[in-house]
Amino acid sequence: MVWFTGLSGSGKSTLAQAVFSQLANRGHRAEILDGDIVRAHLCKGLGFSREDRIENIRRIAFVGNLLARHGVIVLVPVIAPYRAIRAEVRSASHAYMEVYVNAPLNICEQRDPKGLYRRARAGEITNFTGIDDPYEAPDAPDVECQTHVEGVEVCAEKVLQKIALSLRPEVVVSAPSAAAGL
Amino acid sequence: MVWFTGLSGSGKSTLAQAVFSQLANRGHRAEILDGDIVRAHLCKGLGFSREDRIENIRRIAFVGNLLARHGVIVLVPVIAPYRAIRAEVRSASHAYMEVYVNAPLNICEQRDPKGLYRRARAGEITNFTGIDDPYEAPDAPDVECQTHVEGVEVCAEKVLQKIALSLRPEVVVSAPSAAAGL
Repeated sequence: MVWFTGLSGSGKSTLAQAVFSQLANRGHRAEILDGDIVRAHLCKGLGFSREDRIENIRRIAFVGNLLARHGVIVLVPVIAPYRAIRAEVRSASHAYMEVYVNAPLNICEQRDPKGLYRRARAGEITNFTGIDDPYEAPDAPDVECQTHVEGVEVCAEKVLQKIALSLRPEVVVSAPSAAAGL
Repeated sequence: MVWFTGLSGSGKSTLAQAVFSQLANRGHRAEILDGDIVRAHLCKGLGFSREDRIENIRRIAFVGNLLARHGVIVLVPVIAPYRAIRAEVRSASHAYMEVYVNAPLNICEQRDPKGLYRRARAGEITNFTGIDDPYEAPDAPDVECQTHVEGVEVCAEKVLQKIALSLRPEVVVSAPSAAAGL
């Protein structure tokens, strides 16, 4: 399970999508657990309070681990703003990798792809990460991508290299050996 | 996704476990989505009203389909008492099979493995299927097992045969062909 943590607008989903495409091209089983989809299907009724965010993250981790147990590489582009819950997910997971999608708040706010920063600044949304809810940056992420200075291909390649190092041999799709059948 | 529907105490979990063991022995990827585990991890806060049961079933179906999409045979021993929600799950699923675990209410109540019928009769639990909440029996299940007259091995074999008929060829684990390499 590869968790992409970072501010809204930092590029988590874009990066996860790029990694997904590469994995699919290389014949791996992969799945993106997108925050919005999971909220719609598993977390109806949960809001954005600290308690609800934690419950949301626990549910995603539960489903992610179910999939990962069956050899699926699970990509999770979900803010997960608190150190404690990320540590809990790591310790509850068989294989967990943390990608810190790091872009400064002012850059994320300029991008504002969903118009959420504008709404948060206007007071239309509360408990918004980086504005009136904290983002606790990872101390020791497995990979860090600075999306304001590195392109998405470069970032994706860093993640893919780390995944390749973590994969158990039987999950790696390799070309048939030339010696087969001899 | 194989859904085992039936009253509490009808033998859904026992049958799912027997099917799971056989599948695992034969080298298939399988997973049981047990109602209690799912309620603890995905449906905290949901009760047993009609609305909450339906939401619970939708979440299980969402996770089951995620797993099934990656070639996992998902066994779901969960009452799912209403025809309409079972029809919804069937139509939303790529591959769905319904096993009606059928034992008469009075037999289930005698078994009462979790003491729930006793508590429902005493009024300590409400919205209990078969007592004060309806169980709508399937009209056309893919498999029917009468657990009060058929043993668990016989029932499991019926389900396994139906699964084998439904599996796409690539999911079937077969012995290497003698012609390979010639």
